[in-house]
Amino acid sequence: MSALLLGPYRTLRLRRAPQWVEVRLSRPEARNAMSFEMVGELRALFAALDSPAGRAEVQAVVLRGDGGHFCSGGDVKDMRAALSAPLPSGRAEGRAERVRADALASANRGFGELLTAARACPQALIAALEGAVMGGGFGLACVADFAVARDDVTLALPEASLGLTPAQIAPFVAQRLGLPAARRLALTGLRLDAAAALRLGLVEEVCDSEEALAAALTRLLGAVSRCAPEARAHTKRLLARAVALGAEAGGDLDALLDDAALEFAAAARGGEGAQGMLAFIHKQPPPWQAAWGEGPRY
Amino acid sequence: MSALLLGPYRTLRLRRAPQWVEVRLSRPEARNAMSFEMVGELRALFAALDSPAGRAEVQAVVLRGDGGHFCSGGDVKDMRAALSAPLPSGRAEGRAERVRADALASANRGFGELLTAARACPQALIAALEGAVMGGGFGLACVADFAVARDDVTLALPEASLGLTPAQIAPFVAQRLGLPAARRLALTGLRLDAAAALRLGLVEEVCDSEEALAAALTRLLGAVSRCAPEARAHTKRLLARAVALGAEAGGDLDALLDDAALEFAAAARGGEGAQGMLAFIHKQPPPWQAAWGEGPRY
Amino acid sequence: MSALLLGPYRTLRLRRAPQWVEVRLSRPEARNAMSFEMVGELRALFAALDSPAGRAEVQAVVLRGDGGHFCSGGDVKDMRAALSAPLPSGRAEGRAERVRADALASANRGFGELLTAARACPQALIAALEGAVMGGGFGLACVADFAVARDDVTLALPEASLGLTPAQIAPFVAQRLGLPAARRLALTGLRLDAAAALRLGLVEEVCDSEEALAAALTRLLGAVSRCAPEARAHTKRLLARAVALGAEAGGDLDALLDDAALEFAAAARGGEGAQGMLAFIHKQPPPWQAAWGEGPRY
Repeated sequence: MSALLLGPYRTLRLRRAPQWVEVRLSRPEARNAMSFEMVGELRALFAALDSPAGRAEVQAVVLRGDGGHFCSGGDVKDMRAALSAPLPSGRAEGRAERVRADALASANRGFGELLTAARACPQALIAALEGAVMGGGFGLACVADFAVARDDVTLALPEASLGLTPAQIAPFVAQRLGLPAARRLALTGLRLDAAAALRLGLVEEVCDSEEALAAALTRLLGAVSRCAPEARAHTKRLLARAVALGAEAGGDLDALLDDAALEFAAAARGGEGAQGMLAFIHKQPPPWQAAWGEGPRY
Repeated sequence: MSALLLGPYRTLRLRRAPQWVEVRLSRPEARNAMSFEMVGELRALFAALDSPAGRAEVQAVVLRGDGGHFCSGGDVKDMRAALSAPLPSGRAEGRAERVRADALASANRGFGELLTAARACPQALIAALEGAVMGGGFGLACVADFAVARDDVTLALPEASLGLTPAQIAPFVAQRLGLPAARRLALTGLRLDAAAALRLGLVEEVCDSEEALAAALTRLLGAVSRCAPEARAHTKRLLARAVALGAEAGGDLDALLDDAALEFAAAARGGEGAQGMLAFIHKQPPPWQAAWGEGPRY
Repeated sequence: MSALLLGPYRTLRLRRAPQWVEVRLSRPEARNAMSFEMVGELRALFAALDSPAGRAEVQAVVLRGDGGHFCSGGDVKDMRAALSAPLPSGRAEGRAERVRADALASANRGFGELLTAARACPQALIAALEGAVMGGGFGLACVADFAVARDDVTLALPEASLGLTPAQIAPFVAQRLGLPAARRLALTGLRLDAAAALRLGLVEEVCDSEEALAAALTRLLGAVSRCAPEARAHTKRLLARAVALGAEAGGDLDALLDDAALEFAAAARGGEGAQGMLAFIHKQPPPWQAAWGEGPRY
């Protein structure tokens, strides 16, 4: 296992299991508020998960929080420190340079980089939500492939009530929930409870006990274990690319479907597809499923 | 208050309250059918709402109809008059010129301009739907940030049953409801009742009396009052831009997130964000909320 | 009726009625698995439906399967044959050339062409789902304008569990169900039953008997019969184009709305719109509805 993936981390707590890993946001004294250090450690973690070692060893990530909360949003203390940092003296050209020259803008931007990386991770990303899921925590919930929740969960985008925008979070919320729902939540700061999150499709299952949550996570990990790792990563990329081009007929869609056809043929000829079809014919579990042993248990 | 915002209008009826305004479509003899004059007055109104005075004085707009209906669609009398207008003799080049040269196309196009302006208005736009919500009325409901309905509401896109297309409305319906639902409604003209509109997510709440509607509007206005005006306008722009680029990772998303980070830092340093965080620390209402006085009451 | 539309087909079974046609996937011995021949016949059929004769004679298509199943996905036998075909010896340049040079990639790609054509067909496309709706069958359900289901339906994207990607299907699933739902289904292969498909909005109605299904289809065909053929085709194109551009305000949306306004004026002046408004005034059925005679009955 890659050293970077193992840590040590100061704001995260990792638990390894065969083929999957649990990542706990762990600043329970601040309801896991996203400090700059935590953002940095999560970005390092997702970089490690996207490395060859990470791809080979980890097929699923369960993301949750310590102490009964998922994540209460950005850390106000860190933000106030960045606010008092001296502003750049010279005049930066270009927006990326201006962001880098400003400690506060740059810290804010780092959270967007984290969400971009988490959304693109080749593993199946499962969020287990409970307690406070605010601001940045809401953003993390939106980039997960799957989300389940405890019945005590409360989700909100409170930025506008503080005079701020959900700057790095908004695009990911809009993609996850659609523009109308994203707009309503961001313009009011209204709190969603578990039932409302379920109706909105933001979580797939609400669990009324830790046992029920564990059972839901075990089922999800089981479904992930049956699907081939490369096929999963390719499918995530393919869907992201399809959504990006708005599914327009014409040049772009044709190119995407051409690429997908070549990828399909390559997998069927020599890769996971050849193994999968052989296993199917012989009524045996395919090698990627066998690698999970008895099967996952949360 | 800007003179333009105050009117006088012939087809609209305005009621002012501190920080918000109610706009009633008011041609009850025609179930508020959208005459060319009404389209023109609504466009003037939304232009005034987007002016510095409009932004400063109005934070929310409640849009509804007089006489128990929201809006029954385009006005047939006006359309027949435009039909009998002489067609342009010369040959216009370019599509925009061809539209301008044709009284009917140009009137139709004006309604699309209205929907574009309403969708982009910096205020929170709340539609209160009842009775007939047809064609253009359906379009207005789709660009509102929030929609609540009386239980007697009936929504439909009847254009195709008249041999016409929902030409200026279709893109806004597709964005609000998604392509599949938009297609079903536009291809059949089927009528939605209140329960169906709720299931579809087109309205957030169905109210069985005028009192219940007033209570729902009071709650929504209250939520709007707690959020900062500039943060709201920035968030609306940010979300619209995010949706437009399909949330593709890469150059465009990076540029959007860079801009958002700079906007965030500017607000936190000297703008609403600085005021909001200070108020939060001192456990006081922020200045924008204080401006609403006792709080809104519909 | 165009000869091509009438067949003969070996893998499809057609039933003609005035103004509409039922198309049955008909390889019941393989639960209507999509053989290369079936893909070819369906592509020929959709080409004929998009011809002048097809547009004139057919206003709606009901697509279903023979023998109690809709379609169980790609045909494994055909795929294994393509797998054993010799690979191209020379080195193809460009992705489209590489696809054409590879029997397997090219067969896979043909299915994407079928979905693109089915999505763009000028008729109202109604899918009647029952039994297995897997892989490619799921893709066909996603491009239909309307989908109803029997209560015994089971839908899934099993590709990843075979080590393959839903290569040609994924973009159409993402457009139909949104990225999050598409991702969950494609990454797990989880099976949806009728109730889950209804909740997801993939089907509009679940019918507990063949009689109930026939009644639902009769109602849908009735709604289609009231709408004008050209208006329907224009509306489908308009919506597809609106979704493709992400509904961004600015140049592209303006161009789309300009085109739509010109189309609207042309229809109102001399086309279906003029007929429709006249019929409305005289309280008579418009000519396109009269063409269906007594009205459709499934």
